[in-house]
Amino acid sequence: MTNTPGISEDAAMSAALDLAREAAQAGEAPIGAVVICGGEIVAGRRNEREATNDPSAHAELLALRDAALAAGSWRLSDVTVVVTLEPCVMCAGALSQARVDRVVFGAHDPKAGACETLYNVGADPRLNHEFEVVSGVRADECGQLLTDFFADRR
Amino acid sequence: MTNTPGISEDAAMSAALDLAREAAQAGEAPIGAVVICGGEIVAGRRNEREATNDPSAHAELLALRDAALAAGSWRLSDVTVVVTLEPCVMCAGALSQARVDRVVFGAHDPKAGACETLYNVGADPRLNHEFEVVSGVRADECGQLLTDFFADRR
Repeated sequence: MTNTPGISEDAAMSAALDLAREAAQAGEAPIGAVVICGGEIVAGRRNEREATNDPSAHAELLALRDAALAAGSWRLSDVTVVVTLEPCVMCAGALSQARVDRVVFGAHDPKAGACETLYNVGADPRLNHEFEVVSGVRADECGQLLTDFFADRR
Repeated sequence: MTNTPGISEDAAMSAALDLAREAAQAGEAPIGAVVICGGEIVAGRRNEREATNDPSAHAELLALRDAALAAGSWRLSDVTVVVTLEPCVMCAGALSQARVDRVVFGAHDPKAGACETLYNVGADPRLNHEFEVVSGVRADECGQLLTDFFADRR
């Protein structure tokens, strides 16, 4: 993906941030994710856990599912996933299951992050797939959304 | 769950094994999972990844989603999940996200197991939820299904 002309990862993060803001307006933790393939955004989702009562309804997992359905394959090689918050264990595992090439995230998650902080699922040679991780892209904006959301709910 | 009268974990594993056999007949890796709540099986699914092109369509994750939808809550406290194969990173993370009480699995997964073998996601005090793990229940039967399935495909 890094050599494909098309949407920049910064612009993709803008789209993910828009989805995160939409989540906050819906009363969901403000996290958004988009999937880039062939230089284009092919899927984008936000956290929907509260509305759907689905424990797996995190932005990344939902976006991966949409991208795979659109591609007609659960193998999403040559794909970059851009997400506002560091993926949790479940989502990091889903990114590995989907065989993604690259993950770009905004804010680190000190309590649950599984792509650098607590675990680094993308860089475990024991697993049958590894993926590149780029962290800290527009981290302040991404983190501020979460800080504001949880401050408002207290 | 362990003090609730109702279905035994051995009988639940029989149901999970039936689902795993159904998966094999459908050309999917033979893995099945059931969710026990209040002494009853409230959800049961098998691997559906190939048919659905969904990288997240592992038995445990699908069964958790069904159980949460039925319960009307993504928090599945007081729930036991019984699965034929040790959960992967994604599924172990989903079990944590769903706040399950207990996980019972059959065969260990030396290449991807995340509930004892490579990771022990249920026993990580840094995460905001821990769950009990019981391993090796009818492990030979559970493992043989997988061995036979992959031998037939070679």
